[in-house]
Amino acid sequence: MNTVQVSTLSRSYEVRIGSGILPSLGNAVCTSTEAKKCMVVSGENVFPHYGDTVMRSLREAGLEAENIIFPSGETTKCLRYYGQLLEAMAEKKLTRSDCVIALGGGVTGDLAGFATATYQRGIAFIQVPTTLLAAVDSSVGGKTAINLPQGKNQVGAFHQPSLVLCDTDTLSTLPEREFLAGMAEVIKTAVLFDADLFDDLQHRAIDLAGIIESCVMWKAAIVKEDEFDTGRRRLLNLGHTFGHAVESCSHYEMLHGEAVAVGLSMICRAAVSFRMLDAIACDAVISLLQEYGLPTQCAYSAQQLYDAMLLDKKFSHGKLHLIVPRSIDWCEDIAVTPDEARIWLERGLSGTACGQTSK
Amino acid sequence: MNTVQVSTLSRSYEVRIGSGILPSLGNAVCTSTEAKKCMVVSGENVFPHYGDTVMRSLREAGLEAENIIFPSGETTKCLRYYGQLLEAMAEKKLTRSDCVIALGGGVTGDLAGFATATYQRGIAFIQVPTTLLAAVDSSVGGKTAINLPQGKNQVGAFHQPSLVLCDTDTLSTLPEREFLAGMAEVIKTAVLFDADLFDDLQHRAIDLAGIIESCVMWKAAIVKEDEFDTGRRRLLNLGHTFGHAVESCSHYEMLHGEAVAVGLSMICRAAVSFRMLDAIACDAVISLLQEYGLPTQCAYSAQQLYDAMLLDKKFSHGKLHLIVPRSIDWCEDIAVTPDEARIWLERGLSGTACGQTSK
Repeated sequence: MNTVQVSTLSRSYEVRIGSGILPSLGNAVCTSTEAKKCMVVSGENVFPHYGDTVMRSLREAGLEAENIIFPSGETTKCLRYYGQLLEAMAEKKLTRSDCVIALGGGVTGDLAGFATATYQRGIAFIQVPTTLLAAVDSSVGGKTAINLPQGKNQVGAFHQPSLVLCDTDTLSTLPEREFLAGMAEVIKTAVLFDADLFDDLQHRAIDLAGIIESCVMWKAAIVKEDEFDTGRRRLLNLGHTFGHAVESCSHYEMLHGEAVAVGLSMICRAAVSFRMLDAIACDAVISLLQEYGLPTQCAYSAQQLYDAMLLDKKFSHGKLHLIVPRSIDWCEDIAVTPDEARIWLERGLSGTACGQTSK
Repeated sequence: MNTVQVSTLSRSYEVRIGSGILPSLGNAVCTSTEAKKCMVVSGENVFPHYGDTVMRSLREAGLEAENIIFPSGETTKCLRYYGQLLEAMAEKKLTRSDCVIALGGGVTGDLAGFATATYQRGIAFIQVPTTLLAAVDSSVGGKTAINLPQGKNQVGAFHQPSLVLCDTDTLSTLPEREFLAGMAEVIKTAVLFDADLFDDLQHRAIDLAGIIESCVMWKAAIVKEDEFDTGRRRLLNLGHTFGHAVESCSHYEMLHGEAVAVGLSMICRAAVSFRMLDAIACDAVISLLQEYGLPTQCAYSAQQLYDAMLLDKKFSHGKLHLIVPRSIDWCEDIAVTPDEARIWLERGLSGTACGQTSK
């Protein structure tokens, strides 16, 4: 088992990564929280696989354990299920010293995390990610959120977990499409910070636990520096500004990671057209995404994407921060006006300079 | 105009108290936030009185100003209106640099504050209290919340305002019953910290602005010390543990302050029976509450109150913190088991030792 320590102003906690560690969850809850009672929140696609192991482990550790299961999919991150979860927590009389365990992917973690952040103004929270995307990204760093009809992640809170326990075996039941979508965040991390990881991914020279550990280490470093996303943490939005717009235009039929793959390809192409990134690096990123079966183009118009982007919460003082790749492991945060953002979008869509290689 | 500075880890801000200061709101928003756009949240009983002044002041200061009006009353602090408010904020495209202004009493402030704490993970928030209770208590200190069917304030966040602007003229339109309910929190503050204030209240020797300023100063001192309510801030729950149970048993037909008056009377009577408070002090508190037309008894049984109390969020590690008066301006925080809490409740209800004087 590998352990990465995450240290923030509000909390320090461990991310434990390894094979076969799920049965240790109960003891881990007892050492990392003061809970007597816990509520496992999970998705209907996940709980049948791991629910028994989790509930048994919690009860054997002497905890009173309840569970609540939600439908799978992005539409579950809404006010309705948020309310249902809060009422279930109140029904079971969870107190400020008890805890909630999110067993699942990003949707489960975001919904459970936001409920936990706000129930009685915040109780303890444990992440047990069972998707690659949750393992490498959403389970670490304390961002929790639900969606509004008007946009994704419009409502949320910063609430660090008390522990993240990632059993790599749980990723084996993941549908291939979801696994590959998670690779988009891995490739994003490599483009942001880590040329060695990028190289290893190109040569398939790193195992799953190693990939997760690398990504979590980079995320931990950024979150330590900027917990509340007012500066350097914005780098993690690489590929997301356009990606969220793509995801929204697809009415969430594209997976988050797939949309990020498109968004990352677009920002690389636009960066080439502005002579901020060389075409070889751009091609390398797009080829790597394609290697992992990820989409790098979309069928939406600049106008459709622009309208979706205006609803994104990243606008502040009339400006939007775009994260622009300058080379593999160097990205820059630039503030653009809505008009400038539109030009970036258009260039990302056309991008005749590169990214047209098809495997 | 008097100004009290509130300094917490997460934010420092001013509480401005005075007559005729409402028209200065627009300029105050511009100096205390970076907002270009703001959303005024108000109640249907309040907005007709002050809405015009507020909207004009905001627009004259160059701000884009929207408003949304909710029904009055505690039942408005629910998930349904929380969702409505968030969707209205998203419809109007409020960004992270914009702000929300709560114009009203505690219900408006709590609902708007919680929406503001969670919209885009937190945007700026200004309190314009128009009830005595909001002015002396709920508008300062950053506690925001909504209710669940299972209990009051079960869902919320800590989110400090950027400014509190209290125009004492707005309290003149307050129905007398609501004004008097606010006096319960004033008397609570005097019992906790301030024998001079207690004396002034007995002799009606202090004006409204003076009362508000004293209460805000005490609250600011406590919040500075313990923003997140893990220690000394619990003192502010004096009268509230039993009070919330009374309020819940009345199905919120009693006003919060009225229930606090009953809760404060009960804890004083119980403290006398445990020889922790002398009967003269207990009588003085109960007489002062009665002077201000507040109830000091209730018709609910110990069992009814106990059941309601078990749902209160103050239980932690199986214990409940009771704030017990030892004399005027000295209270103690004691942790009791549920069984002990029940005995305190019973003694608070019977209390033959004192508090039976009727005016």
